[in-house]
Amino acid sequence: MPRLESSPLGLTETLSITFAAGPDKFKLESGQHFGPITVAYETYGTLSPQHDNAILICHALTGDAHAAGISSEDGRVGWWEVLVGPGMPLDTDRYFIVCANVLGGCKGTTGPGSLNPATGQPYALDFPVITIEDMVRVQKKLLNYLGIERLLTVIGGSMGGMQALSWAVQYPEMVASAIPIATSPALTAQGIAWDEIGRRAIMADANWDHGNYYAPGHPRPDAGLAVARMVGHLTYLSEESMSNKFGRRLRNRDRYSYSFNVDFEVESYLQHQGEIFNRRFDPNSYLYITRAMDYFDLRGQDESLTETFARTKSDFLFISFTSDWLYPPSQSQLMVDALREAGRGEAVEYFDAISPYGHDAFLLEAQQQGPVIRRFLERVQREKF
Amino acid sequence: MPRLESSPLGLTETLSITFAAGPDKFKLESGQHFGPITVAYETYGTLSPQHDNAILICHALTGDAHAAGISSEDGRVGWWEVLVGPGMPLDTDRYFIVCANVLGGCKGTTGPGSLNPATGQPYALDFPVITIEDMVRVQKKLLNYLGIERLLTVIGGSMGGMQALSWAVQYPEMVASAIPIATSPALTAQGIAWDEIGRRAIMADANWDHGNYYAPGHPRPDAGLAVARMVGHLTYLSEESMSNKFGRRLRNRDRYSYSFNVDFEVESYLQHQGEIFNRRFDPNSYLYITRAMDYFDLRGQDESLTETFARTKSDFLFISFTSDWLYPPSQSQLMVDALREAGRGEAVEYFDAISPYGHDAFLLEAQQQGPVIRRFLERVQREKF
Repeated sequence: MPRLESSPLGLTETLSITFAAGPDKFKLESGQHFGPITVAYETYGTLSPQHDNAILICHALTGDAHAAGISSEDGRVGWWEVLVGPGMPLDTDRYFIVCANVLGGCKGTTGPGSLNPATGQPYALDFPVITIEDMVRVQKKLLNYLGIERLLTVIGGSMGGMQALSWAVQYPEMVASAIPIATSPALTAQGIAWDEIGRRAIMADANWDHGNYYAPGHPRPDAGLAVARMVGHLTYLSEESMSNKFGRRLRNRDRYSYSFNVDFEVESYLQHQGEIFNRRFDPNSYLYITRAMDYFDLRGQDESLTETFARTKSDFLFISFTSDWLYPPSQSQLMVDALREAGRGEAVEYFDAISPYGHDAFLLEAQQQGPVIRRFLERVQREKF
Repeated sequence: MPRLESSPLGLTETLSITFAAGPDKFKLESGQHFGPITVAYETYGTLSPQHDNAILICHALTGDAHAAGISSEDGRVGWWEVLVGPGMPLDTDRYFIVCANVLGGCKGTTGPGSLNPATGQPYALDFPVITIEDMVRVQKKLLNYLGIERLLTVIGGSMGGMQALSWAVQYPEMVASAIPIATSPALTAQGIAWDEIGRRAIMADANWDHGNYYAPGHPRPDAGLAVARMVGHLTYLSEESMSNKFGRRLRNRDRYSYSFNVDFEVESYLQHQGEIFNRRFDPNSYLYITRAMDYFDLRGQDESLTETFARTKSDFLFISFTSDWLYPPSQSQLMVDALREAGRGEAVEYFDAISPYGHDAFLLEAQQQGPVIRRFLERVQREKF
C-alpha cells in the first residue's frame, strides 16, 4: 500500500518503489525499453479526501528526494527546507507534498550506478541516455501509485523547472498549475557549452575509465568531478555576490605566497565545493543528467513555443532572478510572452525577483518567493478544484 | 646591434635577445633573483630620428610576439592583424611597433618549459611565480636594448591591458600614453575563480605529473589543458554571440544521438578549441600566466586606485565592450572615475563600444576601435612630443 501520510517534519524518510520490468518495460524517448526502475521519494503532509492538495517538487541537477525535514538516515536537512514545512509556503500542514529523485540520479532512483539485473554489475555507460520527459514519466508512475490523479501544482527550480514545464505539456489534464523557477524552455548554446565542459572534465580524468570505476578498489574520477562541480557552481553565482562574499581577500595570510597554493578565499571556497561534491555524487549521473538538460526543448516537433503552450491547461507562476545569468529572466519572459500569444495570458503570473544571488537564488530567496507562491497556490486551489 | 627596421609586412620574423644572468640576475616581485631571460619579440616599422613614434603592444594570456604580418617561420597571420599594418590604426608606415612574448610564456621568451641552465632540464615548477609587474620590467629591458627612451603608447587588451596599466604606474616618465582595452585594475573574485578552475583542470590530468611532462615520450596533460581552454574560451564569448553563432543547431544530424558524442554545433566548436590549443600552448605556462593575472592589483600597497593613478603621467584611452562579462565596462569606468578623482580627468578618454562579441571583441572589433585609437595616437604625438 502506498504511504499517504508523511513522517512529522522533523524526521523524514526516503521510501522507494520499484516498477516492474519484463513486458512492462518503460519506453524511453530514445525508443529504448528500460526497466526495472526503482524510484526513491519522500512525502510530507497528508493527501486530502478530495485529493485537491497534492504538490510535486522536482529537484535540480544535484538534488534528491529529501526536500525537507531531517533525514532519518543521515540527519541532513532537506535541500528546500526554507520553503517546505509546517506553516511554510509549501505548507506540509495543508498540502501533500511529494519529491522524488530523478531517473538517472544517484540518490536511490535507478541510474548508471545501479546494478543491471542482467549482468549483476553497475550499468555504467550501458545505462540508456534519458531525457527530462523520461524523468517526468517516471514521476507520473509514482503519482499513479500514490493515488494522485491531479496535481495542485508541480514546482521546481532550474532543471526542476524544466520538469515542471514538461509536466504541463505532457499531462495537461493532470496539472492544475506549474511553478517553473529560474528555468528555460531549452538551454542556450552557452548552457549546453557549460554542461559539455563539465562532462569533458569528468571524462578527462583517467580514473573515469569509460565509466567503469565502480569496482571495489578502483579509484573514482574525483579530480575530474571536482572540476565539473567548480565550473557548475561558478555559473550558479553572480559576480556581485562573489565580490561581496570574497572579493580579493587572502586566506589566512597577509601577502601572496608566490605559489600555486590557495592564496585567495575564493580559491579555498571553490576547492571545498569540489571536494564535498565528490562525497555525495556519482560522476556518471552527472554525465547523464546534464545530457538530459541539453536535450530538453519544451517545444514539440515543428512547433513554436506559442503552439506548445496553447496545448497546456495549467495556470503558471514563473519566477526568475535578476542576477541569474545562467537562466536569465529573459528566458522566463519568453515563456510568458508565448503563453500570452497563445491566448493564455490570464493563466500566467510572472515574478522577476531582484536578487544578488545569481541562479542559486531559487534555493535561497525564501522571503521573496514564499509569499508569491503561497498566494498563487491558494488561488489555484480555490479556483481550479 | 638591435634591429630597428621591420621586415616589410608581409613576412615578419621573431627575434630574440638574452639578458645576462650572474650578478645581473633579474629581481622578481617575489624577491627571488632569476636569469638569464631570453625575450622573443617582433618589430614593425622604423623608429623615427626623434624617437617619438614607438609603440609597445602587450599580448593577452595565450598570445605571443607575432602581432602582425605573416610569420616567416610558420606562415601564421599575426594575432592583431586587424589593427596593425601599413595604413592601419597601429600604422607600421608611421610608427615603430614592438611586441614581445611575456615572461613565463612558451613562445620564445623564458618560461617554465625553457631549459634551466643550472640543470640542463626544463624548469617545470622550479620556474619562479612571476607577476604582471615582472613581465613589464622585462619589456623595459627590451626597450632599453632597442634604444627606446619613451613610448608614444603602450597598448593591449585583457592581460595586455594590465601590462599597459602597470607600465603607466611603474614608468610614468616613459609612457606618454596608455591604451588599456577590455581590462581591469585587478581581477574580481569571479575572475580569480575562472583562473583557478583552469589550473585545477590541468593539475587534475594525471599526465601533468606535477609539471614534469617534458621528457620525450612522456604524455602531455592535453585533456586537462583542453578543459582549461574550453572554460577560458567560454568566458571570452557572450551568450548573445553564441546564440547567434550556434543556437541549438545539431552537427551533421537531424535528431539527437542519445549518446555522449557530439550532437550540438557548440560542442564540436568547443572541443575543437580545446584541441588546437594543445598544439600551441604549454600547460605550465597556462598555470604561471593565470597566476600572474590573479596577483595583479594596480593599486600600490595601502593605496586607493585614485592615489595610484595620481602618480601616473600618461594620457589614457580606455576601451571596453558592452557584452564583455569577464572584464565588464564597469571595471574600465572604475579607472576613469579614479583618474578624474585624481585630478587627471583631462588626460582620459573612454570608449565603451557596443558589441555582441564579449571579451573577444578586443581582437575582433577593428571598425569600432580603429578610428578611436588612430585619433588618440595622433593627438598624443602632437601634444606630448
